[in-house]
Amino acid sequence: MSLPDHGANPKIFTKALGVAYEEGSIDFSVNTNPLGMSNYANFTQSDLKEAISAYPEPHAEQLTAALARYLKVDKSRLLAGNGAAELIFHLAHIYQGKKVLLIEPAFSEYRDACEANGCEVESLVLEDPWKINIKQLEGRLAGVDLMFLCAPNNPTGTTYSMEEMSEILNCAKNHNTIVVIDEAFYDFQESRQTLIGDINQFQHLIILRSMTKMYGIAGVRLGYMIASPSLIQRVKNIQPPWSVNGLAQKIGQNLLEDSTLVNETASYIKTERLRMKTELEKMDFSVSDSVVNFYLLSEKDKRDLRPLMIFLIEHKIIPRHTYSFNGLNGRYLRLAVKTKDENNTLLSVLKKWREQPC
Amino acid sequence: MSLPDHGANPKIFTKALGVAYEEGSIDFSVNTNPLGMSNYANFTQSDLKEAISAYPEPHAEQLTAALARYLKVDKSRLLAGNGAAELIFHLAHIYQGKKVLLIEPAFSEYRDACEANGCEVESLVLEDPWKINIKQLEGRLAGVDLMFLCAPNNPTGTTYSMEEMSEILNCAKNHNTIVVIDEAFYDFQESRQTLIGDINQFQHLIILRSMTKMYGIAGVRLGYMIASPSLIQRVKNIQPPWSVNGLAQKIGQNLLEDSTLVNETASYIKTERLRMKTELEKMDFSVSDSVVNFYLLSEKDKRDLRPLMIFLIEHKIIPRHTYSFNGLNGRYLRLAVKTKDENNTLLSVLKKWREQPC
Repeated sequence: MSLPDHGANPKIFTKALGVAYEEGSIDFSVNTNPLGMSNYANFTQSDLKEAISAYPEPHAEQLTAALARYLKVDKSRLLAGNGAAELIFHLAHIYQGKKVLLIEPAFSEYRDACEANGCEVESLVLEDPWKINIKQLEGRLAGVDLMFLCAPNNPTGTTYSMEEMSEILNCAKNHNTIVVIDEAFYDFQESRQTLIGDINQFQHLIILRSMTKMYGIAGVRLGYMIASPSLIQRVKNIQPPWSVNGLAQKIGQNLLEDSTLVNETASYIKTERLRMKTELEKMDFSVSDSVVNFYLLSEKDKRDLRPLMIFLIEHKIIPRHTYSFNGLNGRYLRLAVKTKDENNTLLSVLKKWREQPC
Repeated sequence: MSLPDHGANPKIFTKALGVAYEEGSIDFSVNTNPLGMSNYANFTQSDLKEAISAYPEPHAEQLTAALARYLKVDKSRLLAGNGAAELIFHLAHIYQGKKVLLIEPAFSEYRDACEANGCEVESLVLEDPWKINIKQLEGRLAGVDLMFLCAPNNPTGTTYSMEEMSEILNCAKNHNTIVVIDEAFYDFQESRQTLIGDINQFQHLIILRSMTKMYGIAGVRLGYMIASPSLIQRVKNIQPPWSVNGLAQKIGQNLLEDSTLVNETASYIKTERLRMKTELEKMDFSVSDSVVNFYLLSEKDKRDLRPLMIFLIEHKIIPRHTYSFNGLNGRYLRLAVKTKDENNTLLSVLKKWREQPC
């Protein structure tokens, strides 16, 4: 049994690895908000019954209108989806058989969706510290119809400056390449850097967003895309009605009222991530220059980390393996920034690891 | 603004029609269980928080296993979806560009999904009382790759005997046509007639099921398909991970424990539908020979029913228009079998209509 392509399901992962799952383990493989679910995602019993039993609007009309006001984007440029994953698959469907460039290591669904749709998938695999060299990109864009770039990037947590982003977008424009920027984690950055401001200017830009991670609603599924009205219409055309379920439609609107969670979370994440980086580097580990709520841990000699991964699991810490990420191949572990107590537990287990006799 | 393709959203419908929506109207356009949501769809507050915040299993593994046991079907033949609508769109995607035959009038999503995927859509439009003439079908199946048949049929409520079904399946087999039987309403029939027993024998049979209607969970979305393992694998390949949201996965497993709702509902529906048919026929209306929880109402001369439709809405009864159904074209109204009180309200409004001066 091969290792799963996703974190956040520790029992599936440990089973595949052949290691016993210990009850009470801490899941460092999940990338949702460590401060927990937004209070605005709650339901009273009667609201809940209504949300479960009533038919949702077929195309999430009210939610889309609310998002348009919130983002200050025309609603013709917006489409809500059953998580960003649904929208990635629809994009791959529309560009089926076309040439797609992935900037890797990256979220596995771009590849899975594109391969399932017969795309010719090419990969530009970046090396640590995972920065795009624009000349190298230039050399790879000929004939590429669609390019996926996750920024901030899952799994490295690193991102690009606005200047670097502009260079990338202009380079793609020159090659008539549509660029999908996956901003699933943009709101975990203290800067909240985003390309939404460029959406009117760049016809070839598609932005993906997820509400799952920040607001802690992975169970109800909610994401959206921002793109040109014509592309939105093409995706809408192949999207099943009621794709965004009733609870997601209702919660999504409520979450937009939550004015404190994003700031509090981003501020907490920055402080805590820097604390962890300092502590981990003291222990002689390398830590990626993440701007979000997870980071990559590695040894300076970039050895395979399977022994450490198993040690962590045996000590009730579930990391995210990286065997499924091109360019990482098990030499790194992805770890979430969790609560202070949880992070301290991780530090103490890693200390034990370091103190082991060789 | 054209009339919407679906019932169950009365405000969208009345707005499109240009008629004021009266608060407290009864929605006869929705086809979910009139006895209400299953008690097994409830959540305690802590279970709810868990279901909203935790990542679902990527491919609904536990739910699929539970369905397999419940249906006595091998799990390699089963796939859960974000409502049956998602599965219809995946099937149309797999058969993109192929020749598809719709037996109409029928649920609009078959056409929408197939057209969105560039299929060559043909239609065999049946006339009241909507029975397939096997010779006629024979003449239409040449070169057809996929055929959709809704049984019991939405919107007519009529169905086929097992002998007629066998004839249809054999006829399709002779033409190498894959047959999709949409059994979304099978459990509202007192007989619970189904083709599941034929699934091992007919490689070219696909059965669609919905849990939305019987169990009253339209807001969380849940459907499944039963087909050959190879087709299931092809659909799974293009299905995004986490497509079935966490609440649907949890509720779906719980619902299989609900041993009374289906029997009670089917028995209630039969009695109440027959009562309504008798009363409506006394008023000189025609009523389709439905076996499920809705029926078609018409005038004997099959005149256009727009005036009656508007009269009903003005009297707080929301019917399902039929302008979007090939072969019905507004000459019928689809009405749900609701609670006794609600049905009596409908009867009294129709009585008023009959008593109007011409």
